[in-house]
Amino acid sequence: MFKVLFHVSDNETWPKAVLNVQNFLKDVGKDGAEIEVVANAAAVVTYYNQEKADLLDQMKQLSETGVKFIACRNALNAHQLDENSIPGFVKVVPGGITEIVAKQAAGFLYIKP
Amino acid sequence: MFKVLFHVSDNETWPKAVLNVQNFLKDVGKDGAEIEVVANAAAVVTYYNQEKADLLDQMKQLSETGVKFIACRNALNAHQLDENSIPGFVKVVPGGITEIVAKQAAGFLYIKP
Amino acid sequence: MFKVLFHVSDNETWPKAVLNVQNFLKDVGKDGAEIEVVANAAAVVTYYNQEKADLLDQMKQLSETGVKFIACRNALNAHQLDENSIPGFVKVVPGGITEIVAKQAAGFLYIKP
Repeated sequence: MFKVLFHVSDNETWPKAVLNVQNFLKDVGKDGAEIEVVANAAAVVTYYNQEKADLLDQMKQLSETGVKFIACRNALNAHQLDENSIPGFVKVVPGGITEIVAKQAAGFLYIKP
Repeated sequence: MFKVLFHVSDNETWPKAVLNVQNFLKDVGKDGAEIEVVANAAAVVTYYNQEKADLLDQMKQLSETGVKFIACRNALNAHQLDENSIPGFVKVVPGGITEIVAKQAAGFLYIKP
Repeated sequence: MFKVLFHVSDNETWPKAVLNVQNFLKDVGKDGAEIEVVANAAAVVTYYNQEKADLLDQMKQLSETGVKFIACRNALNAHQLDENSIPGFVKVVPGGITEIVAKQAAGFLYIKP
């Protein structure tokens, strides 16, 4: 089984990243890959953007098939975003880069959409 | 011998990516590396852009020294581009991300220009 | 100990890259990681930009804790920048991509901020 980490560090890249994950899952099936999407820097803002409801809904659906969505706490703090009101499908980690490093060290392949 | 995958996901990055490959090959020689350039998302449009003839010619020349140029079929379909009229030096794969994952799993190092 | 390479290929990404490194070091400590930041393409211009004195000072401080800052000579030449007047904390290598490949082959994890 493939382990793949997608790194998103700006808001503009989110639609591309979500489509990447959707297409990849079509190819390998939900049991063919362990997928984690890590958002740091400005990218965490999209998690709170209600004007992106369609995109957030696609992310939520992906999370229901096992894709993990991560937010960097450093980035949340930098953008004064309240961790308690982040969507329920998103997990907050202390540091996004530290998460990416740890996951790569654990065998995840890295992709920057 | 190094195995290196360059991932290009937008059109603006192509000149930088091509220069990266050219400079890298100057350092290691054409027998020093196995190189694959994977274009997905909007980046596939450049393959069809006749206003970028110079760039496409450089890509073709690189392909003649062994560099593989790949296009993602999902991206071609999303941009309504005809696979049959893609330049002959480009190989189409079903999914660009799946290709990147498979190649990394096979030992290719990943670079996002 | 983690070995991590940050790849910066445009000037806009520098503040994000520096913050990434700072936050990562807070998590793992300066003895917890070997870090190299490789600038190629237009990103090398920032090393010479006196209007970015604050940013350059942060980079210098990071270098004093062991973070290595690298500039690609191909990029310096392309931007007609004099290697002799680059800040003292920056090391120039013949090719940025070749450096990234060599370091990844030596076990460095790759991150594109």
